[in-house]
Formats: sequence, C-alpha cells, structure tokens
Amino acid sequence: MRTLPSISLDEAREVIAAGERRAQDIGQPANIAVVDAGGNLVAHARMDGAWIGSIDISINKAYTARAFDIQTRDLADNAQPREQFFGIQVSNQGRVMVFAGGIPLQHDGQVVGGVGVSGGTGEQDQAIAEAAAAAYRPAG
Amino acid sequence: MRTLPSISLDEAREVIAAGERRAQDIGQPANIAVVDAGGNLVAHARMDGAWIGSIDISINKAYTARAFDIQTRDLADNAQPREQFFGIQVSNQGRVMVFAGGIPLQHDGQVVGGVGVSGGTGEQDQAIAEAAAAAYRPAG
Amino acid sequence: MRTLPSISLDEAREVIAAGERRAQDIGQPANIAVVDAGGNLVAHARMDGAWIGSIDISINKAYTARAFDIQTRDLADNAQPREQFFGIQVSNQGRVMVFAGGIPLQHDGQVVGGVGVSGGTGEQDQAIAEAAAAAYRPAG
Amino acid sequence: MRTLPSISLDEAREVIAAGERRAQDIGQPANIAVVDAGGNLVAHARMDGAWIGSIDISINKAYTARAFDIQTRDLADNAQPREQFFGIQVSNQGRVMVFAGGIPLQHDGQVVGGVGVSGGTGEQDQAIAEAAAAAYRPAG
Repeated sequence: MRTLPSISLDEAREVIAAGERRAQDIGQPANIAVVDAGGNLVAHARMDGAWIGSIDISINKAYTARAFDIQTRDLADNAQPREQFFGIQVSNQGRVMVFAGGIPLQHDGQVVGGVGVSGGTGEQDQAIAEAAAAAYRPAG
Repeated sequence: MRTLPSISLDEAREVIAAGERRAQDIGQPANIAVVDAGGNLVAHARMDGAWIGSIDISINKAYTARAFDIQTRDLADNAQPREQFFGIQVSNQGRVMVFAGGIPLQHDGQVVGGVGVSGGTGEQDQAIAEAAAAAYRPAG
Repeated sequence: MRTLPSISLDEAREVIAAGERRAQDIGQPANIAVVDAGGNLVAHARMDGAWIGSIDISINKAYTARAFDIQTRDLADNAQPREQFFGIQVSNQGRVMVFAGGIPLQHDGQVVGGVGVSGGTGEQDQAIAEAAAAAYRPAG
Repeated sequence: MRTLPSISLDEAREVIAAGERRAQDIGQPANIAVVDAGGNLVAHARMDGAWIGSIDISINKAYTARAFDIQTRDLADNAQPREQFFGIQVSNQGRVMVFAGGIPLQHDGQVVGGVGVSGGTGEQDQAIAEAAAAAYRPAG
C-alpha cells in the first residue's frame, strides 16, 4: 500500500489564480495548467489573447515537472547536446517539455503535482510559474 | 475580413461553474471543458474524484461540438453503423467524440465555442453540459 | 489536499503472479500489467509464447480499468453501436480498451489501480484478470 | 530458416532483480525493462517512488539497445549535432532513446534482447543497467 499525496481542484485553482495575477502584472497573457500526483490534468486556463499553441505546452510542462520531479528549466540544461538527457523530449509521445515554465508542486518534501505555464518568453513563463507554485497551500 | 465571435476566459469559467453546480446536485464528479470559436481549449476543470480517462474526452467533446457545430449526442445518431457519418470518430486524430455531453455555445445564432462534459453516464454528462451551456452569458 | 491510495511494486507482483498461475492452469500464456492510482504502469510481464500484440493491450486494459473505474468487460457493453459510450475507444490516443480483461483494483471501496490481461480469448483474459485482482492484498 | 535466440520471462526477471539490487545500493529508485530478440517488451518494473516519466523511457532504452544492437550511451555519441546519426531519436515514432541506460543482452556473441533503465542521472541509470545486464544467464 502506497499513498500519493495529491492536489485538489480548489488548490489547483488558487495556483492558477496566482499565476494569472503575475501574468497580468507582467502584461503577458499565458496558459496555466496544473496536474496531480499521477501527472493527470486537474485544471487549465488560457488567458484572453494567449497563444493557442501554448495550450498543449502548458499542460505538458506541468506533466513534465511531475513526471521527473524537476523544474523544466533544469531539465533543459540536461537535455542539451552532449548532456545526459539529450533527446529526452521525444519520449512519452512528445509530452516532455525541456524549456522553462514547469515547476513541481511540493508538500512536506513530496511532489504532489506540477504547474506549467506557456505564453511568453522563457523568463516570463518561469516567473509566472514561480508565482503560481509559491501560492500552493495544501488545505486540510 | 471576418471576425470570429468567441468566448472569454471569464465567460468560460461561468459556464464551467454552472456545470459543476449541476454535477454536485447530481452527485457525479465530472470533467468540464470549454473551447473557443477556433476549437481551442479555453479552460478545463476536473472535479475531485472524476475519472482521469475523462479529461481527454471532455476536452474533445467540447472540440467536437464546435468542430461540427452540433451536439455530440446528435452526432452520435449519425455516427452509428449504416448512418451517414459512420466512422467519423477516427478522423482528426481521434478527437471526435460521438456520444452525449458536448454542446455548442451560441450567441445570436452563431456558434462561439463549445462545452464538453465527461464523468458519468451519457445522461448525466448531457444534463451537466446543458446546465453549463445554459449559463453562457456573453459579456459586453 | 487529497491523498490517493495506490499500489506498490510488491503488491503488483503478487497480482501478476496470481494471474500467471491461473494462465498456466488454463494453458494460455498472457501479458499481465498493473497500473497505479494515477493510471501509470507499475509492472508488466509477458509469459513465454504470449502474443506481442498483446503487450500494449494488457497495459491499456489496466489503464482503462483505472481511468474509468470500471471493468473493461462492462465498458464493452456501453461501447457498442447505439449504446451510451459508442466511440469511446478512439479517445485518449487509443488507450481505451473496450473488451474483457481489465479490472480495477480496490481497497476499502476505493480504486487504487488496475490490472489488465491480454493473450487469449476474452473469457480467458477475464478469468486470468479475475484471479489476479482477487490476489490483491494491500500491505501495511 | 532462422532461429532467434531470445530471452525468457524467467531470465528477464533475474535481469530486473539484479538491477533493482543495484538501484537499492545506490539509493535511486528506477524503472527497469527488458525486451526480447524482437524488440518487444518481456517485463517491466517501476520501483516505488521512481519517476512516472521514466516508464516509457526505460522500455524504449531497452528497445533501442536491441533495435540497433548498441548501448544507448554509445548511440548518444553518434546522435549529437554534426555526428552521423544526428536526429535518429525522432525515428520509430520517438522510441529511440539516445542517452545512457540501455544495454543489449548477449549470448555467445548474439544479441538476444535488451535492458533499459531510467530513473536517475545518466551515470546511475548506466550503472544499474550494467548490473542488470551482467546478471543475464541464459538457462537451458
């Protein structure tokens, strides 16, 4: 028997709302997605005007952050030519995103899900994802 | 020049919220998704306990409702063996859902998006989708 | 905060071992797979001589049983022409298997994973899956 | 007439067990997969806590090791920009993994299958795969 601590819809919405506030401050509409401990989507929002090509990317950044318990920005470093995970982005049917914007959601040192942001530059996506992840407050 | 009347994130959230209320009344957690006039995802929510296999289905019921400007329940009739659209569900990379739960969102006779629900029986999904679609109020 | 009760590798192996014993009694080699609460593969075994086309099917029967918290045999009934889930098998990138051999694994009324069997007739697969599922004993 | 010397399920399990022991020594849970002479999965195990994104990668490292009769670590050298197999990782529907952790299983100079490991750094995966491959003892 194992138990996987995971994230509720209410919590996911708070994460997304915090990301949206940051995106508005920056002035860059974004897609923001949250997955649970199993890597499965809990909630997604595309802010008005955000790229449609980023829907998939936001969901898959969130997936990647949970699938490897790593920030996608850090995975990016390892996925470069001659680095240890070069080529990882073709695995998992193209769901592995190797650029900034995906962050694991943690509680008491355990990864309970992931948030993914896509819509602007790597720096913008990362900033929004950080604000979103920082707002994660496990209830109950 | 064409303009596509479409749906905003705020409006999509009201649609989803209405669906959630109905799902709670029914006692059946569901996935609820909204796409815009381009058939692209605006927002998705998976209620706690809803099937993970229904994430994809809810998004694609919403897509289907907009892709063909039809309720997926009605498309189902046409997709049966010997009917005129038999086999349509393998088109579009498996994104066409031919069972109840997807409804176009309309304004002034124009389809501006779609809502898709998956999580229970066909009847439950349809009831939740109807409640969601009925809550669509184009702002401003 | 949600917690998902799930299945350990040791438990998955006991489930598979029980399935193998049943398969040997029947004289029909099979693929047997177990997924966790998130629908992700925990363990798979292909008995010597079992079909290679059934690798994917066993894994996806296990996935389907968890993705919809239902036996794939029962989903089959609902996926027939004119039934409420006709066409569901094209969703989720072809991972939904709508014939017998996939069974949810439950503990205290909660689905904690799924087992999938493929290699023989539907009846054989079902019998092996039932023996496998019956052997599930949550430890600790 | 050709005969393909291949690997049995029992042998595959010994390979995986040896990999698990090494992974436990290292303190890094991993996914370990074995394919046969046809490149088809024989057995897979995900140790408790191992990455879910590594399920697919372990299976495909094993596939790659057999598909090209080469260690994936060596294939990596050839898959870098300006090297002779640059781009090979998008072939075979994304199943070709070009980083360390996949090793062919050999008997009397013939490749009879492959083992793939994913869950840690490239060095860890390689060490676990080496321990797994070294345990391969063809029976009978």
